[in-house]
Amino acid sequence: MPKWKALPIFSSDALSSVGYGPEQIAIVLASVPTLATYRYFGPIVLAIIALLFIVALSYTQVVRVNPGGGGSYGIAMKYLGVYPALTAGAALLADYILTVAVSISSGTAALVSAFPVLHPYHVYLDLGVLILMMIVNLRGTREASTVFVWPTYFFLAAMGITLIGGFYQIWNGTLTAHTVAVETVAPLNQTALMLIVLRAFANGCSSMTGIEAIANGVTMFKAPQQKNAIETTAIMACILAIMLGGLGYLIIYLHLLPTQGYTLLSLLVEDIFSRTLIYYVIQILMMVILYIAANTAYNGLPPLLSFMAVDGYVPRYFANRGERLSYSNGIQVLTLMAGILIVLFQGNIEHLISLYAIGVFLSFTIAQSAMVVYWRQCRERNWRLFSVINGFGALVTACVVVIVLITKFIYGAWIIVLLIPTLVYMFLKVHHHYDDVREQLLLTPEEYTKVMTTDLGRNIIIIPIASPTQAVAKAIRYAKIISGSKDKIYAVHVYSDDERGKKIKTLWRQLEPDIELIMLQSPYRQLTDPLITFIQELRKETAPKDMITVLIPEFETKKLWHRLLHNQSGWLLRLRILPYLDVVVSTVPLQFTK
Amino acid sequence: MPKWKALPIFSSDALSSVGYGPEQIAIVLASVPTLATYRYFGPIVLAIIALLFIVALSYTQVVRVNPGGGGSYGIAMKYLGVYPALTAGAALLADYILTVAVSISSGTAALVSAFPVLHPYHVYLDLGVLILMMIVNLRGTREASTVFVWPTYFFLAAMGITLIGGFYQIWNGTLTAHTVAVETVAPLNQTALMLIVLRAFANGCSSMTGIEAIANGVTMFKAPQQKNAIETTAIMACILAIMLGGLGYLIIYLHLLPTQGYTLLSLLVEDIFSRTLIYYVIQILMMVILYIAANTAYNGLPPLLSFMAVDGYVPRYFANRGERLSYSNGIQVLTLMAGILIVLFQGNIEHLISLYAIGVFLSFTIAQSAMVVYWRQCRERNWRLFSVINGFGALVTACVVVIVLITKFIYGAWIIVLLIPTLVYMFLKVHHHYDDVREQLLLTPEEYTKVMTTDLGRNIIIIPIASPTQAVAKAIRYAKIISGSKDKIYAVHVYSDDERGKKIKTLWRQLEPDIELIMLQSPYRQLTDPLITFIQELRKETAPKDMITVLIPEFETKKLWHRLLHNQSGWLLRLRILPYLDVVVSTVPLQFTK
Repeated sequence: MPKWKALPIFSSDALSSVGYGPEQIAIVLASVPTLATYRYFGPIVLAIIALLFIVALSYTQVVRVNPGGGGSYGIAMKYLGVYPALTAGAALLADYILTVAVSISSGTAALVSAFPVLHPYHVYLDLGVLILMMIVNLRGTREASTVFVWPTYFFLAAMGITLIGGFYQIWNGTLTAHTVAVETVAPLNQTALMLIVLRAFANGCSSMTGIEAIANGVTMFKAPQQKNAIETTAIMACILAIMLGGLGYLIIYLHLLPTQGYTLLSLLVEDIFSRTLIYYVIQILMMVILYIAANTAYNGLPPLLSFMAVDGYVPRYFANRGERLSYSNGIQVLTLMAGILIVLFQGNIEHLISLYAIGVFLSFTIAQSAMVVYWRQCRERNWRLFSVINGFGALVTACVVVIVLITKFIYGAWIIVLLIPTLVYMFLKVHHHYDDVREQLLLTPEEYTKVMTTDLGRNIIIIPIASPTQAVAKAIRYAKIISGSKDKIYAVHVYSDDERGKKIKTLWRQLEPDIELIMLQSPYRQLTDPLITFIQELRKETAPKDMITVLIPEFETKKLWHRLLHNQSGWLLRLRILPYLDVVVSTVPLQFTK
Repeated sequence: MPKWKALPIFSSDALSSVGYGPEQIAIVLASVPTLATYRYFGPIVLAIIALLFIVALSYTQVVRVNPGGGGSYGIAMKYLGVYPALTAGAALLADYILTVAVSISSGTAALVSAFPVLHPYHVYLDLGVLILMMIVNLRGTREASTVFVWPTYFFLAAMGITLIGGFYQIWNGTLTAHTVAVETVAPLNQTALMLIVLRAFANGCSSMTGIEAIANGVTMFKAPQQKNAIETTAIMACILAIMLGGLGYLIIYLHLLPTQGYTLLSLLVEDIFSRTLIYYVIQILMMVILYIAANTAYNGLPPLLSFMAVDGYVPRYFANRGERLSYSNGIQVLTLMAGILIVLFQGNIEHLISLYAIGVFLSFTIAQSAMVVYWRQCRERNWRLFSVINGFGALVTACVVVIVLITKFIYGAWIIVLLIPTLVYMFLKVHHHYDDVREQLLLTPEEYTKVMTTDLGRNIIIIPIASPTQAVAKAIRYAKIISGSKDKIYAVHVYSDDERGKKIKTLWRQLEPDIELIMLQSPYRQLTDPLITFIQELRKETAPKDMITVLIPEFETKKLWHRLLHNQSGWLLRLRILPYLDVVVSTVPLQFTK
């Protein structure tokens, strides 16, 4: 894949975050009534741009090593061990879910800003887009990813036009700032001020999500892969920095404040172009790029689950990436979780953002730490320099994790703090179970030969019958076919009404005197309980190597709805016997022809 | 059961309908802006009281004959034939569902009138009560019915106090009527006037639901059963007539108009006692009696379904009234349908009432017509007189059906007009299927002997295997036990990856050279499709009397959640084979110990 194609495909998530990043900084700063903190907007944007370059630089190192996919999870498993890797896996899972929820909500916010009449329906729009996205992804999007190339470039062009338009109007003096009434109140104390500024910074860090995408997709690049991937990372970082810086400057210049029902970018574009066609085009492109960003999570989750499934930390059936079922399960889980978040938070981006960024930066930190270990192990040329770069990256991103945790804990970050260890615990339990299964299923040729050459044991067949019907006759014929001279067949009738019980017994004696009919009384019309007791008693009397077979005569209706007209006692019996008793359950079906 | 106990138990439905009956007349009459029609309130109430006595008299005749339960359905099946009986059954079903929906909504309306702060939540209250009622009924309410004796008497006392209080205040002149501003506009034309008056009458007929309950429960009375039941019917009719008449008179005297958010009875009681403790007690008793009335439908539905199930018109498992499952199914269906109605109509009694009454009066008509046939057949003493009484009842109630149909068709009655034939059609389809089943299952001793004495045929065993495990070893041991010298065992491996396929084949040859291993290629990692094709081919080659057994090696996890970690291919295979192919499916389980 050439660079011009890879850039839009891998960076829509990162680039689209200008759609909510600056606004989330502004929302926190504007929450102080005096606007005393709003002057920190500029410095915070600059700090985030600096952080962006540090993270991007760290990730060019990941590209250089290219440990073959799996992202932070894969690198951590290789160089740091199980616990950091599972933490990274859990963080990434949380992050994918939040990417979907935040990006869709932001895309809808861009649309609703342009068409306020849609505002009351924004949660429904979110869910509609989410379900549409699920359907498209379930049907498969292998070739669809190239469709996303052009919208990204159109979006970049739109942002470029916005910046040029804005700065041109500043230069010729036609862009006038809003007047903001600022009350003069007692200044904030230092701690409160710092907490607010740090929380604004933490919110702004959401702009950096998706920056690791290129490093995860190195194998998709044209040769020389690593050089191209590094250059693309650099280009992406520069574009994102220019957008953040330029848009941030314009927001400050215009004294824009977050306004209910309109995104900050919508207000900005409206100030520059007013509500002309170009405004609407830009809003629609903003919406499209954000929806595309949400879609990247759908592409990212199945590979992650696949890596974790191969290692046995999530159900195995996620492992086969090509398989329909495995792929679908991941997509459905992602949709469900994102849908729950959207409904719970009513599509409110400000609240969702409080959960975001922890996962991302935690996985950044783990990936960079793993790189440090790698450099120390391989001792390639310049390993000291490289390990310093990644070490610094790890340190900075770890600081961000701590800042986000402290400043956003009560606003929702605690959910992630609970979620990640819970997920890690679940991964470990799953792995433990798979170990148990392997041990219990293991079969050596010696064992096999031993089992097969000794006396095989005999078979005791139990046929529950209600009344003598064609279905019962077929089951008995089958029982006679599969039973040898050593084996034994019991027909079992469960009755609650004495009268009817006697009638069945007489009927049976006439029909088949050779097979013993066991009569079990069940005063409460319960079928399965007396049968299970009977089987348990029988099991005690037989040798361990002997097999017990419960033969269920069943009729199969021709039409599906006919099944509703018969009680599913065979199915119920099977469900209650199989997992608990060491007996074979056989169903002898009689197909109805009408 | 003595009369004093039977009265409240059987008549809570009928008596509680004063909670909505008069109001529903008033709503229609007040819908005309000039109130030109409001003066028909009195005559309509009198007409309904007259109708009440006609229906009650007709039902004393039903009590006299007492055909052993089943209500209209039972009598109609005996004397009129299948179609009228099924129509009555469908009408009764619709009616039970509406009784629940209307009574619960009305009970909540009484509560909300007393506490208007609850108004926004009235639909939730309805659903809450509905679910509570379901739970209580699912747990069984055999003895609970006597608990309902006292609330009914308290309610009657409350209504008595209201009437006495009202008339006393009229007598001493302390009760003053509201002044209602009436505009003078052009009078309505005759047709429009008649339609409105008839619709008000049709609405008022909802007061008569539940009057048949005593006739359905004659067997519960103390001896002399019939005499006691007839007397109780008479007492109930008189009480209901007094309440309807008295409350109707007070409503007219006070010039009360339906008011959003308050029931008419609440306004009446408030006018008499103002918002004192006694007002609140009366409202609560009103609420309780209406909820109890809803509960009577839960007691009425299972017997009806049982009668219909014995005749084979609804699934057989409804037949055993004692059985937990049958009972639960009925309760759940009733709850679900009533819940859907409440949500669809947002607990609006006025709209629900439009669907009500048709079912009731249709079943009245059918029951009375059946009685006419009965009298003509038995020719007991006075049969002519009795048949005239019932014939008149049938005629009057048939007229009511027609009136309700015409005046409320567009308001929702069309739903019932569609529903009843649909239900009848379904009953017939169910019956037809049971006939087919009986025919296909019928086994004569001759057939049985023929099947068993001829050559039984051989058994071909197919074991799908993934890789050699303990579970597979156990399945093969079982296959060897059940197979004789004529039989044949195939192990089948479905593979998509050539490499892995070869590996399994080699492993297998070493382990078990005696059993043929069939290799099936499946490029799309599909397990069941190639297996089914293989079985179908095999079926073509074998004799019809030969049996094919698919032996599924399965492991049973110790904990339930562990099941989620394994794909359920065995279960899936079973589901796809059993209903379609003539093969026995056996599951050989390996129980995990950890």
